[in-house]
Amino acid sequence: MDFFGLYLTAITKFNESCLSLHDIQNKSHNNTKTRNTTILNSQNIMGFLTNEKLLIVGAGGMIGSNMAQTAMMLGLTPNICLYDIYEPGVHGVAEEMYHCAFPNANITWTVDPEVAFKDAKYIISSGGAPRKEGMTREDLLKGNCKIAAEFGDLIEKYCPDVKHVVVIFNPADVTALTALIHSGLKPNQLTSLAALDSTRLQEALAAECGVQQCKVTNAYTYGGHGEAMAVFASEALVDGKPLSEFNISEERWAEIKHSTIQGGSNIIKLRGRSSFQSPAYQAVKMIEAAMGGEKFTWPAGCYVNCDKCGFKNVMMAMPTVIDAHGVHYCEPKGTAEEMAALQASYEHLCKMREEIISLGIIPAVADWKSENPNL
Amino acid sequence: MDFFGLYLTAITKFNESCLSLHDIQNKSHNNTKTRNTTILNSQNIMGFLTNEKLLIVGAGGMIGSNMAQTAMMLGLTPNICLYDIYEPGVHGVAEEMYHCAFPNANITWTVDPEVAFKDAKYIISSGGAPRKEGMTREDLLKGNCKIAAEFGDLIEKYCPDVKHVVVIFNPADVTALTALIHSGLKPNQLTSLAALDSTRLQEALAAECGVQQCKVTNAYTYGGHGEAMAVFASEALVDGKPLSEFNISEERWAEIKHSTIQGGSNIIKLRGRSSFQSPAYQAVKMIEAAMGGEKFTWPAGCYVNCDKCGFKNVMMAMPTVIDAHGVHYCEPKGTAEEMAALQASYEHLCKMREEIISLGIIPAVADWKSENPNL
Repeated sequence: MDFFGLYLTAITKFNESCLSLHDIQNKSHNNTKTRNTTILNSQNIMGFLTNEKLLIVGAGGMIGSNMAQTAMMLGLTPNICLYDIYEPGVHGVAEEMYHCAFPNANITWTVDPEVAFKDAKYIISSGGAPRKEGMTREDLLKGNCKIAAEFGDLIEKYCPDVKHVVVIFNPADVTALTALIHSGLKPNQLTSLAALDSTRLQEALAAECGVQQCKVTNAYTYGGHGEAMAVFASEALVDGKPLSEFNISEERWAEIKHSTIQGGSNIIKLRGRSSFQSPAYQAVKMIEAAMGGEKFTWPAGCYVNCDKCGFKNVMMAMPTVIDAHGVHYCEPKGTAEEMAALQASYEHLCKMREEIISLGIIPAVADWKSENPNL
Repeated sequence: MDFFGLYLTAITKFNESCLSLHDIQNKSHNNTKTRNTTILNSQNIMGFLTNEKLLIVGAGGMIGSNMAQTAMMLGLTPNICLYDIYEPGVHGVAEEMYHCAFPNANITWTVDPEVAFKDAKYIISSGGAPRKEGMTREDLLKGNCKIAAEFGDLIEKYCPDVKHVVVIFNPADVTALTALIHSGLKPNQLTSLAALDSTRLQEALAAECGVQQCKVTNAYTYGGHGEAMAVFASEALVDGKPLSEFNISEERWAEIKHSTIQGGSNIIKLRGRSSFQSPAYQAVKMIEAAMGGEKFTWPAGCYVNCDKCGFKNVMMAMPTVIDAHGVHYCEPKGTAEEMAALQASYEHLCKMREEIISLGIIPAVADWKSENPNL
């Protein structure tokens, strides 16, 4: 029933929406000017979830370019705008997409933020500086939070009617918080990528128990997306059986937690570059859900201001669902130990929040309402 | 009717096939050993075109890693084996795929060719050396043809029952020819990537005429995939109208051809790396077609031995369709000028063939039958 409802929503959206077509301002193949989009009233396009404009920020990078391809392959929308400050990079990615020749695609690229953000209905931003070998996510704090503040300002200025925004540049919890405050959006309209910690935990538990990865369920990480994440596995099931039946030693359990936390830096060691395929894929799946497609049930980073939980004024990973109405969260359930880990993670996030307040990137908590009345 | 027939074929395949599950030989997360596959008799898996084993050769590279992700996202098969000679690279790509947590995936990785090729039913190989800035595809001839010969030998030894193989490392026409001779496969079972020249032509014509890219049809390149490709656009339609109505000047037409031919090196200039997204996507679409999915109708490189056309004992791009029965080709139709360009391209391919014969990588044409009775 629920799925059918979503399907009807998607179909309705589809029939209401209109077609965008190439308005190619510059005919020369090798030019360095922007290709722009014109929205025309025309027939609908089959095979897409929506026709609304999806903006990919940081599209010239490895994550951004993968998101463009992933969004097309999953049939999200024909109208994708690629934006980056680095012109050759974003132009090159656009060329790659044109060479894929996706049917009915209307992929445009630009280095002009006004062109990029204008009328965007969905946005994914990977437009921060990447993490290098040896760096923690927190090292990136200052530079990337400034970028996030500008990103939020652009949303407020050019696309206040945007429906959902996913922020994936690190440290994602505080960049997303910064973007939320600056954008003026409602809390359910902006999420940050947090799923990879949980998929890494799932992978580690599957390897430990010798089962196919998808047979591990109910094992998640909550709280910060950084190294202070809280691992919740007391309710985990392995092929339907409680994880406790597998008698994992304390030593092995510590190793599993460690490998989950180090999953990202392990990719850097192995590939010589930051992970890009998995963040791109998960971020696009989050936007797909916000467009009314398959619901996203891995944890997402979301704005939490919950007296009952004791977590106030932070973005953090919680048990969440993303659907066409945005992100919804509930309170995590776990052992005393798990809840204590979550509390510690929350406190770490508060510390990072205070740091960006003291840097002047966001106002003091008491003044947030003046920037964003929805908070 | 035809589509429905294909659909039935896919469903039948699906019901006949069996499930593979992880047999994780090493439980440690950060180990460098192979993860292997065991074929088990079990229930079918929904949402895939087939359950048969797809092998990706060169999976540690940029093209290979994108192919793995693309194959999963397009729902080709849960059973994908990633193979590369560079262990950290292929291990890192596997980790990225595990972090995507594709439902029902059974993605394995190995550096052991026997494990990789054993029982593979579909193979895509990007396992050659990449083209660097300034290099032509032909510069790669010698090294990559040796790799192609070994690749063909591995097919013959470990998976003679493979159904379809796509070769995409350059110069693809001669690497694919070399692989075909060494593999013992039938000509309709092995294709090489040639579509990107045609999608680049489509893009250039769309930009010239100011229409959406998919509105340009019947414009293709045939012959060699190198710089001696033959452009066929005399029958091209732009939004249903003959291209001739657009009065493209000779000068502009020369520029369009040039930009089509330079499409690959343009990407290198812009992105600082060889194109990888578009070749990966198109190659996976070719395998999807061979698995009984959507037919592939962009030109593919295929073995041509046709007295009527005058083209003998080469792999070259032709008007082709790939479907569950493999690749089918017909004779290109064009103006005298286009046919002359194709003849020149063919002669260039014959010259490259003679070069690898003289290098001892493949036998003289008269002796091919002793290596591969299907030729």
